[in-house]
Amino acid sequence: METLLLNGTDVRENASMSELVPAIEDAFVAFEHGDVEMPAKSYVDLPQYNGDFRSMPAYLDAGEWDAAGVKWVNVHPDNPEKFDLPTVLGTMIYSDPETAVPLSIMDGRELTMLRTGAAAAVATDHLAVPDASSLGIVGAGVQSYTQLRAISQVRDIETVVISDLDEERVAEFVATFEDEYDVRGGTIAEAAACDVLSTVTPVESPIVAREDVGDHTHVNAMGADAAGKHELADEVLLDAKLVIDDYEQTTHSGEINVPWSEGVLDDDDIYGSVGEIVTGKKLGRIEEDGISVFDSTGLAIQDVAAAHVVYEHATEHGNGYGFDLLGLQ
Amino acid sequence: METLLLNGTDVRENASMSELVPAIEDAFVAFEHGDVEMPAKSYVDLPQYNGDFRSMPAYLDAGEWDAAGVKWVNVHPDNPEKFDLPTVLGTMIYSDPETAVPLSIMDGRELTMLRTGAAAAVATDHLAVPDASSLGIVGAGVQSYTQLRAISQVRDIETVVISDLDEERVAEFVATFEDEYDVRGGTIAEAAACDVLSTVTPVESPIVAREDVGDHTHVNAMGADAAGKHELADEVLLDAKLVIDDYEQTTHSGEINVPWSEGVLDDDDIYGSVGEIVTGKKLGRIEEDGISVFDSTGLAIQDVAAAHVVYEHATEHGNGYGFDLLGLQ
Repeated sequence: METLLLNGTDVRENASMSELVPAIEDAFVAFEHGDVEMPAKSYVDLPQYNGDFRSMPAYLDAGEWDAAGVKWVNVHPDNPEKFDLPTVLGTMIYSDPETAVPLSIMDGRELTMLRTGAAAAVATDHLAVPDASSLGIVGAGVQSYTQLRAISQVRDIETVVISDLDEERVAEFVATFEDEYDVRGGTIAEAAACDVLSTVTPVESPIVAREDVGDHTHVNAMGADAAGKHELADEVLLDAKLVIDDYEQTTHSGEINVPWSEGVLDDDDIYGSVGEIVTGKKLGRIEEDGISVFDSTGLAIQDVAAAHVVYEHATEHGNGYGFDLLGLQ
Repeated sequence: METLLLNGTDVRENASMSELVPAIEDAFVAFEHGDVEMPAKSYVDLPQYNGDFRSMPAYLDAGEWDAAGVKWVNVHPDNPEKFDLPTVLGTMIYSDPETAVPLSIMDGRELTMLRTGAAAAVATDHLAVPDASSLGIVGAGVQSYTQLRAISQVRDIETVVISDLDEERVAEFVATFEDEYDVRGGTIAEAAACDVLSTVTPVESPIVAREDVGDHTHVNAMGADAAGKHELADEVLLDAKLVIDDYEQTTHSGEINVPWSEGVLDDDDIYGSVGEIVTGKKLGRIEEDGISVFDSTGLAIQDVAAAHVVYEHATEHGNGYGFDLLGLQ
C-alpha cells in the first residue's frame, strides 16, 4: 500500500482551478450545513524562533465525496532573510476517512496558496458585479498569482493592476501574465478602482483608503491572519456588504479583528458568511449594492477539499511518487 | 532540500531503545519544567465510519536538543475485520522548530508503539523494585513487544509471562523472544505476580484483580485510551502508589477515568506525575512501598522526542529515503 508524495510542483501541476473553485464552494456548503468536523486550529508558539506552528485538522462530507486530513503550517517571518526560505511552509497529510490510510503527503505551502485563491474566487463569483473585467491586486507575493488564476475562473478578467512597493516583484508578476492579460503595475488606488480587488499583504495598518475603492468594487481581504493585522480602512468595512468565512476566526484574527475588538465595528455590520451565500440562505450581490468585502481567514476544510482535488487528479493521471509509508508487513 | 521518509520498518530499525528511553525521560523532565508547547489533542470524530482522528502537535526543549512536530493518529476498530488493516495507524511530521522545514515524515504507528514502550520503561525505572527480574504482560498485541524491549533497558528482565486469550498471539510472542528470555504464556494472575506488569489491552472492564497483583509489583497501565476504558480493579489503584503522566488526559481517558468520574477515586489518591518523579520533586519507589501503578495516556511530546531519536539515528547512518517535499524553486 502506497502513499502518494506530491511536492510543491506536483501540487501545482495537479490542481486544476476549474476543479478547485467548485470544490472549495462545496466545502463552504458543507460547513454551512454542518457536514464537517473542524476543531479549532491549535497553535504552537515559539517566540525564541520568532515563529509558530498551527495544526489544522478537518473532515468534510460534500455528499458525492468526503475527505479528511491535517495541515501542519507555520509562520516564521525571519526565514527569508536568515535562511533563504519562505516565511510560510506547510505539509498536508491527506487521509482516507474510512480507514485512516494516509493516501497522500503533499506540500502544504502550495496547497494554501491554491485554496486561498479558490476561496477568493468563490466569494468573487457571488459578490462581484456580473460583468467584472478588471482585477486589482495589492501585494505581489506568492498569493497574488493564485488570486488571478482563480478569479479568472469566475469572471472574464481582461485588465490586471498589480501594486507592490517591491518593483522586482511587480515586474515578475507582469512578466508572468503579460501574454494572457492586459497587466501593469500601479498604485494601490489604481488597483482598488478595479471591479475586483484582492489584498494579499502582511501589513498591520490599513493601506487601502475608503476613497480608493471603486463604487461597486468587490474586495477580497486575504492578508490578515493574526490579531492586530488589517489591510482596509475601517470605513471600507463599515460601508461594505461584509461577508466572512468563520465568525470565531475572523473576529480573532481576520481583517475585521482590529475594528471589531475596538468596538468600531460590531456584529450588526457583518452581512453574513460565505456559507450562507453559497447555500442561498442569503443573497450575494444585488443591483443596489455598492462595495462588498470578503474577509477570508482560511479554514481547514478548504485545505482538505483542495487536497482531495489534487489527489484525485494525480492518481487519475499517474502523477506523483508512491512510497510505502505504512510499511505494514 | 530533502525530507527524510521513514516507513514502519525504517522507524523500528532506527529507534534504539537505549537512546529512546532517555529521550522520553527528557521529555517528561521538559514537561515538568514547562519547557514544552503542547496544545490539547484535537479530535475529529467520524461515527459514520466508527472511527476518529486525533492531531497531536507539540514542541519540547530538552536543553541539548529541541524538537517539534505533529502526529496524526486514528482509532478505527473495524479496520482489521473489514480492511485487513490495523485499528491504529498514524503519520508523524517532524519539523525543524527554527525554520519549520519538514525534516522527516515517518510512520506514526510504529512510533507510537516505541514511545509507549519507552514511557513504561521510564516509569518502571523509577517505580519498580531495583532487582526486578520478571515481567508480566497482559495483551499480546503489537504494544507487548515494545514493552518488553523497552523495560529490558532499565531492569535485568529474565522471566516473561505473556497472557492473552488468543493462543496464536501468545505463541508468536513466545517464538519471538524465546532465545533471549525465559518466556511463557500464562494466566493474568501469573503475569500480575511478576515484579513488573504491563497491561496493554483495549478492555472496558477491569481484568486484573487486586489479589492477582504481587506485593511489590509495579504496574504500567497502558491500555486505557478513552473514557469508559480501564484494565485494573479499583482496589489495585486505591492500594497503589499511583503515578500519572498528565492530569487532564488521565482523568478524561486514562486508566483512572472510570473510578475518578464515579468518585471512587479522587485527587488525593494520585501520588504524583512521572514528571515530578523524574525531576526529583517527588520520590519514586521507596523501601516501604507495596504496589505502584503508572497510568500512561501518552503525550504528544513523547512522539516528538521519539521522532527526534529516530531522525538523528537515520541521518547519521544514511538511512531512509530523501524526497524533495517542499519542491522550492
